Amino acid sequence: MNLEEIQNPQFLKTLGKEELEKLAAEIREFLINKLSVNGGHLGPNLGVVELTLVLHKLFDSPSDKFIWDVGHQAYVHKILTGRASQFDTLRQYKGLCGFPKRCESEHDVWETGHSSTSLSAAMGMAIARDLKKSSEKVIAVIGDGALTGGMALEALNHIGHEKKDLIVILNDNEMSIAPNVGALHNVLGRMRTARKYNKAKDELESLIRKIPAFGGKLAATAERLKDSLKYLLVSGMFFEELGYTYLGPVDGHDVDDLLENLSYAKKTKGPVIVHVITKKGKGYSPAELDTNDNWHGVGPYKMESGELIPQEKGGPSYSGIVSDTLAELSEKDERIAVITPAMTVGSKLVPYGKKFPDRLFDVGIAEQHAATMAAGMATQNMKPVLSIYSTFLQRGYDQVVHDVARQNLNVLFTIDRSGLVGADGETHQGVFDIAFLRHIPNMVLMMGKDENELRNMVYTGIQYSDGPIAVRFARGNGFGVPLDEEFEKIPIGSWEVLKEGTDAAILTFGTTIPMALKAWEVLAKQGISVRVINARFIKPLDTEMLNSLIEENIPILTIEEAALQGGFGSAVLEHLADEQAFHIPVDRMGIPDRFIEHGSVTKLLEEIGLTEEDVVKRTKALVERRNSKKGMLT
Amino acid sequence: MNLEEIQNPQFLKTLGKEELEKLAAEIREFLINKLSVNGGHLGPNLGVVELTLVLHKLFDSPSDKFIWDVGHQAYVHKILTGRASQFDTLRQYKGLCGFPKRCESEHDVWETGHSSTSLSAAMGMAIARDLKKSSEKVIAVIGDGALTGGMALEALNHIGHEKKDLIVILNDNEMSIAPNVGALHNVLGRMRTARKYNKAKDELESLIRKIPAFGGKLAATAERLKDSLKYLLVSGMFFEELGYTYLGPVDGHDVDDLLENLSYAKKTKGPVIVHVITKKGKGYSPAELDTNDNWHGVGPYKMESGELIPQEKGGPSYSGIVSDTLAELSEKDERIAVITPAMTVGSKLVPYGKKFPDRLFDVGIAEQHAATMAAGMATQNMKPVLSIYSTFLQRGYDQVVHDVARQNLNVLFTIDRSGLVGADGETHQGVFDIAFLRHIPNMVLMMGKDENELRNMVYTGIQYSDGPIAVRFARGNGFGVPLDEEFEKIPIGSWEVLKEGTDAAILTFGTTIPMALKAWEVLAKQGISVRVINARFIKPLDTEMLNSLIEENIPILTIEEAALQGGFGSAVLEHLADEQAFHIPVDRMGIPDRFIEHGSVTKLLEEIGLTEEDVVKRTKALVERRNSKKGMLT
Repeated sequence: MNLEEIQNPQFLKTLGKEELEKLAAEIREFLINKLSVNGGHLGPNLGVVELTLVLHKLFDSPSDKFIWDVGHQAYVHKILTGRASQFDTLRQYKGLCGFPKRCESEHDVWETGHSSTSLSAAMGMAIARDLKKSSEKVIAVIGDGALTGGMALEALNHIGHEKKDLIVILNDNEMSIAPNVGALHNVLGRMRTARKYNKAKDELESLIRKIPAFGGKLAATAERLKDSLKYLLVSGMFFEELGYTYLGPVDGHDVDDLLENLSYAKKTKGPVIVHVITKKGKGYSPAELDTNDNWHGVGPYKMESGELIPQEKGGPSYSGIVSDTLAELSEKDERIAVITPAMTVGSKLVPYGKKFPDRLFDVGIAEQHAATMAAGMATQNMKPVLSIYSTFLQRGYDQVVHDVARQNLNVLFTIDRSGLVGADGETHQGVFDIAFLRHIPNMVLMMGKDENELRNMVYTGIQYSDGPIAVRFARGNGFGVPLDEEFEKIPIGSWEVLKEGTDAAILTFGTTIPMALKAWEVLAKQGISVRVINARFIKPLDTEMLNSLIEENIPILTIEEAALQGGFGSAVLEHLADEQAFHIPVDRMGIPDRFIEHGSVTKLLEEIGLTEEDVVKRTKALVERRNSKKGMLT
Repeated sequence: MNLEEIQNPQFLKTLGKEELEKLAAEIREFLINKLSVNGGHLGPNLGVVELTLVLHKLFDSPSDKFIWDVGHQAYVHKILTGRASQFDTLRQYKGLCGFPKRCESEHDVWETGHSSTSLSAAMGMAIARDLKKSSEKVIAVIGDGALTGGMALEALNHIGHEKKDLIVILNDNEMSIAPNVGALHNVLGRMRTARKYNKAKDELESLIRKIPAFGGKLAATAERLKDSLKYLLVSGMFFEELGYTYLGPVDGHDVDDLLENLSYAKKTKGPVIVHVITKKGKGYSPAELDTNDNWHGVGPYKMESGELIPQEKGGPSYSGIVSDTLAELSEKDERIAVITPAMTVGSKLVPYGKKFPDRLFDVGIAEQHAATMAAGMATQNMKPVLSIYSTFLQRGYDQVVHDVARQNLNVLFTIDRSGLVGADGETHQGVFDIAFLRHIPNMVLMMGKDENELRNMVYTGIQYSDGPIAVRFARGNGFGVPLDEEFEKIPIGSWEVLKEGTDAAILTFGTTIPMALKAWEVLAKQGISVRVINARFIKPLDTEMLNSLIEENIPILTIEEAALQGGFGSAVLEHLADEQAFHIPVDRMGIPDRFIEHGSVTKLLEEIGLTEEDVVKRTKALVERRNSKKGMLT
């Protein structure tokens, strides 16, 4: 059928097994084809084709609620709810979002991006339903990796206790974002293999019933024995213990198996866990055979061969630079160990792990634990490095405040994907870290102008011994600048003048330095002399350099690819206020007070007015203002 | 013995059971006596007397590491490590801290306050130990309530997987801070009662061994059967499944039982959970008999009778006002439901729960789940209220950003204990919420000047339908002002002029308003006319009122009982910068960039320079500055 003609999932109700299987094949072909052009989350979506079809056949969206944890596996759902024709715009500016989006469709009842939120959301919806005495079904689809996130475990605990009608589909694939870790993973593994014992169940039960003792003195334990047998045989006892009806394991690519178990789940009262085994990348051999999870999220590729089409790059990736630097430093410094919450691949830590298998700790999706575990190591005079995406560090905010900074422990945070990230959009933009870290006492926060300075900052962070220190760096690649042979320790709180000038000063750092330098050129040609300062320490500020600007009466433009409210520009304003230096006009450029959607970073920067032209315009306005004020004062 | 003469726990090594029991009684008497004067966490400490004695007898602190989760149960540990003589200063300014404190003693290896951090910290220490090829023991003591916190579950999962040597003491009392919730609690309950089956173990095992089939065709399942039996009988299977050796349940007040099991735990390789059943308040009948957990943390009391000595109070407590207001509004508005993460008692929600048992959700210590569950309810047109302490909302930061604000959902946050909290100190000061909420798009944040305005703000928050809204309020009691008969909806972003004046303006809100008003009086007598503004909306600002200050050229003093960096004062600076209004001198008063220790709020405010005198001094300086500037300009 023509997938682009699908308006809603109603048509699925009348399809039989073979038609569903045919449709599954068509959807796979569609996805493999569409994603080859601009990329996307291919692996997770190929894994849930049958599951999504059967869910939409058995349940009635949008009155029944589907909640897709993380949400990068919702492409099939998008196709079935009338959005196939928009796939050419997937993850592009103003195009189809890569995650569920409430404004896109009434079938998207919950937006995701960060993992492990689905069970809490589902519980909220189930409570609302029951208070309203309504009867819709609530279904959360969560991966085995996301289930290890603390908030998912909190919800699992609460749901099991409250006994609300609620279906949890545990989408258990053997290829989640990172190699799955954790005891829970082992439990699931045992469940997966428990299937073969099922057939022995009846036999054993009747056998045990024959033991005379069970009619006699041990009668009191009969109920427990039943549970015990269930544990022995069905192996879902872990979840049964927590108050769930456990169904599975179900073959997630077998339509009949799915139909049978999900129909049963639909009829069951109380919380149900349906344990569905799926294969990421199913039906596309390059993705199926991939053991490094490169096909989880992928760029453009050649459809026939699965060959990835190389993207234009500058220098080495910032993540790679940080990982390599840590490896280099770890050779000589035994105190160093690296912790990542399930981002071994994303933060390019695989080589580090190969070199130092005992010193890389992938704790799974567990940002809170990761941060506090780092603090624990630091109390023992280790030098732990928490490698984490900016947006995921939000999950560890309290741990950074309460455990790391309050105890003033020597943890180095290497904050990956700081600033705009592009195609992943709203949920993944790393634009709040300055605002949520800057007010934490004892914290040092820095960002380098290029990959060489980034290397030196990692080195500086390792050497630093006065408390927590963080280096943020952007997604993507450096400039290919030469790397120093010897590491250089950068004095804490020191800025660097990149261009001299006296009419105005631009204070900026990291990714926005190039636009400042270009603006400098343009302005120089117009006779305006601008001092461009690499404000590489966001905290503490280089107050000496700031005070010299005050003395010289130079107006200041701050630029940051980060939230303006409470950001770096505000820090500069605070210092000027503390110095009672109100004669200095300041203008601040950065991310405005709203969430920034998906799209190429270039497009997004244009949209929010963070371009070379804006820098030129606003610098000129500042200079004019200074000049008119000078006039006033003379 | 004289407890004040104890230097370190070495003397315990030679004590026998009876001596330990005698010492336990002496420690209880000491605690009951000392705490009767100034209060403290009596209940939790009376519950762990024998446990702490046996731990210090069997292990060698500080080389072996004790980590006390939450930490309010570490008084006995403090006594045994040479701090008994300081108990007269407990929780007072510059006195003994109510929680473990690294600067107090080498025996305090980890500081706590927020719950559920101990397992992560212990794991960090165990990793450090193994990397250093050292051999000390790491012991975390965690309550059954704290175990439901997501980060503890993350750690439980990781530890079970990594198989490090590490001892978790599960301090299971039947009277944790809040009535315990969650499926895990039910699991523990079953374990508690499983004891009686233990004696049947051998008998049943030998019985089963006699079944001929187990030597035959079912041999493959033998290993699983063994586990299954263990599950049936020992009931620690839940933890065994997760990779732990489970010991218990142990009677936490039986020295022999403790000695036996903890000795065994000490010898056991890999992670061990020792399930210890204790009674909060043990040995002091008023505390033991208390079913409302009033003796968890207590003020002064009469030792003989256990009668609480009433403290001087103003009006009704802010928590109570909020709870009552919510109850009043819930009568007429069925959309309202209240969620609390284990703070039903603390936030005075017991009466609400009695009136609306179906609409109060105590989710246990699970701040992340609480916030996102509220968001889930809001998607279904409910009006969820998340009642949470300021310091604990730090745990839900990502959920506020990613789930509530990003989806712009109608969740009302009632933020209890905002500002300085006093005796609980560093870990509990609610001074960061402005800085971590203000930069979140879509967020509205307010604070009332008294209990009447607080009531109206709760009402306003319930009526508000444009996204998330938060009302923060202080610990403690209001002024006893009369309460409006009809609720008043406060226009979003509107401030209120409390006193007219033209020489300077003081912008402040909540608890710091009285000092501003007093300063106004003092300044008026000196001929300085100050406008005092109730800046009740921290976000959005009343830009109209601010712009009129700009037009009138009035210098501004901002006062907030909150972190200065990124705080309310910074918001004012940002607005002035956006308006390019640099002729207005601004001075900001608030919490400086460091953690604030325990002590009475009055003392702390003096220490940080947040008093009426400071307000007078700094207002005068601003006025002088404005006048001298006027001179410059004319």
